[in-house]
Amino acid sequence: MSERGAGFVPGLEGVVAAETRLSHVDGAAGELTVAGFPVEELANRATFEEVVYLLWHDALPDAGQLADLREALARRRALPRATLDLLRAAASEGTPPMDALRMAAGTASLRAGDASADGDAAYEEALAVVACLPTIVAAYRLLLDGEEPVDPDPELGHAANYLYMLGGGVPGDGSVRALEAYLATVADHGLNASTFAARVIVSTGSDLVSAVVGALGALKGPLHGGAPGPALDVVFEIGEARRAEPVLREKLGRGERLMGFGHRVYKVRDPRADVLATAAELLYATDGDAALYGLALEVEKTAVALLEEHKPGRNLQTNVEFYTALLLHGLGLPTELFTPTFAVGRVAGWTAHCFEQTERGRLIRPQSEYVGERDRRWLPIEER
Amino acid sequence: MSERGAGFVPGLEGVVAAETRLSHVDGAAGELTVAGFPVEELANRATFEEVVYLLWHDALPDAGQLADLREALARRRALPRATLDLLRAAASEGTPPMDALRMAAGTASLRAGDASADGDAAYEEALAVVACLPTIVAAYRLLLDGEEPVDPDPELGHAANYLYMLGGGVPGDGSVRALEAYLATVADHGLNASTFAARVIVSTGSDLVSAVVGALGALKGPLHGGAPGPALDVVFEIGEARRAEPVLREKLGRGERLMGFGHRVYKVRDPRADVLATAAELLYATDGDAALYGLALEVEKTAVALLEEHKPGRNLQTNVEFYTALLLHGLGLPTELFTPTFAVGRVAGWTAHCFEQTERGRLIRPQSEYVGERDRRWLPIEER
Repeated sequence: MSERGAGFVPGLEGVVAAETRLSHVDGAAGELTVAGFPVEELANRATFEEVVYLLWHDALPDAGQLADLREALARRRALPRATLDLLRAAASEGTPPMDALRMAAGTASLRAGDASADGDAAYEEALAVVACLPTIVAAYRLLLDGEEPVDPDPELGHAANYLYMLGGGVPGDGSVRALEAYLATVADHGLNASTFAARVIVSTGSDLVSAVVGALGALKGPLHGGAPGPALDVVFEIGEARRAEPVLREKLGRGERLMGFGHRVYKVRDPRADVLATAAELLYATDGDAALYGLALEVEKTAVALLEEHKPGRNLQTNVEFYTALLLHGLGLPTELFTPTFAVGRVAGWTAHCFEQTERGRLIRPQSEYVGERDRRWLPIEER
Repeated sequence: MSERGAGFVPGLEGVVAAETRLSHVDGAAGELTVAGFPVEELANRATFEEVVYLLWHDALPDAGQLADLREALARRRALPRATLDLLRAAASEGTPPMDALRMAAGTASLRAGDASADGDAAYEEALAVVACLPTIVAAYRLLLDGEEPVDPDPELGHAANYLYMLGGGVPGDGSVRALEAYLATVADHGLNASTFAARVIVSTGSDLVSAVVGALGALKGPLHGGAPGPALDVVFEIGEARRAEPVLREKLGRGERLMGFGHRVYKVRDPRADVLATAAELLYATDGDAALYGLALEVEKTAVALLEEHKPGRNLQTNVEFYTALLLHGLGLPTELFTPTFAVGRVAGWTAHCFEQTERGRLIRPQSEYVGERDRRWLPIEER
């Protein structure tokens, strides 16, 4: 039993494990603040590099600072041969992308070590791991398809280069802007389980690559939340607008939960949904399948109305997964890359939390309460 | 702010984050219970496989169960080619052993996936990762020395095979018994930071390889504690018995902390120290350097007496690191393999905690408290 006498708190629910300046989720008000900015103020304007700088330094970069960070990340995109060999081995085993990403991200230590001699080791680790995640995801996608990875293009920004490495050539502005918006909306979101795992690991004085690898492991779990799931499946299943109402009525009548609507924390509209709706609208207006976009809006409108009819007062709104799926699908990403792409954005927050945790410098080490046997006695094996 | 209104609890100190039947640390009484057994009842009798079975199943195995587990682990010792290639690459970069171990352990997913089709995926992951850790550590040691890895011998037990793979041939009984005792004493120790990291990760529904990789990342940190540090350095520095008192007096006079004495949790004698003292005595009586052992005992006796004189009433006793270092050194292990060897034992506890966490099935997700800015407004880059 603890000295504080607090007793067991399942899931540490309601316990405050960190003070942070990185983000704040107000579920009741439907507000997400990212490093002081309302997410809707930031996400449709900032590039990924600006978001990384903001989270790491608590201020937007000026032109020189941004150019430096952009160059520092671009220089660290290419994967060591050992990492590519590992990805090839994983692809030949059909390893799921999140496992392959976790394995390959772990090898960022192979290079972070090199460059840290001349500076801050943690900063070098952060640069290395933020820079290499898109390269890993894109290379693995192509390897799984039996194709060779596309080398990163250092002239492109982080988001544009990710799309480029996925094999579609140099992306259009609409696609790049949509991906920037997505990465900014997911860059940080309070103390979710993966971020907490990263903080626990780095709180021992360990390195940032170890922390990010732990976070990737946590993100993989289906209970993590926040990772975009198969929210568009219902749109594909419905297929044409006139089928939206009958199909959705049938699902609700059978008691099915509609993916893409409602959120554990946000009790009003998820602010990220609006940002991504705007970004998706722009994307589909320039580079996307306009018919699919129209259908998705029709399904959304019908679903929200039917949910209000079916569960009055619950205010089940379109959640971020719905627009995420619409946006990432519009960018040509297959569903199995949705969670890895989430990681490409969230690593900004993971690394920033590591810096913050390290500054405060306190080991995170809760207690357990023993509920097992006591004073057992050894029995020789023949007597068991 | 949390609904419970608990406020920020730095380091989650005193908060109970898990109920466990796996181990209990009573620092005031100097007692460690491992799955119901006082550690001194268990550690000088059990093999590592028996400890693993006990932690996983809450009972000692009968002969058939033990043979099955031993065979299941032995069959999973060999590393995939991709893992060996990764270790070769790490060795060529001079990657520290704990980083290499974390990277290589992550690749256990390459194989755990194969065999899980016919059974319990989590159990298969646990077998794979427990089985491969010694192979990774031993192979990496030899690769760092420019030698080729030694293939595992499936006829040997887990501990004996680890020593065998380290390149010293088939080990003597005294060495094997000493290593078994060490692995049993470190197999589990309440909710330390690495174990907690593993529980956080697996609580999302993620896999056990991800959880163990996260734990390895946390264990690497210097604040983790429990990992054997350079506690023998003072013995080597002293070199001969007659120098013990003057050297220790000088160190204490300079205000130096003596590694190997005192513990954050245990306020009386650490029960693991007694177990390892017994094991070390047996080891040095058969396979070890008797002169070094005698010197270490002399240093210990002098240090405890001088600490009582210097800090009366603090009761600073020899801690587990001192005997761990003595024992592992006697087994021929270099200091840089002490923490990796700790992991070889602790993985029994990490995997057992994962099973326990999964049975209860609750996401571990504390809250953060926001202390940053609000309502910042976007500025174009030329205005920053």
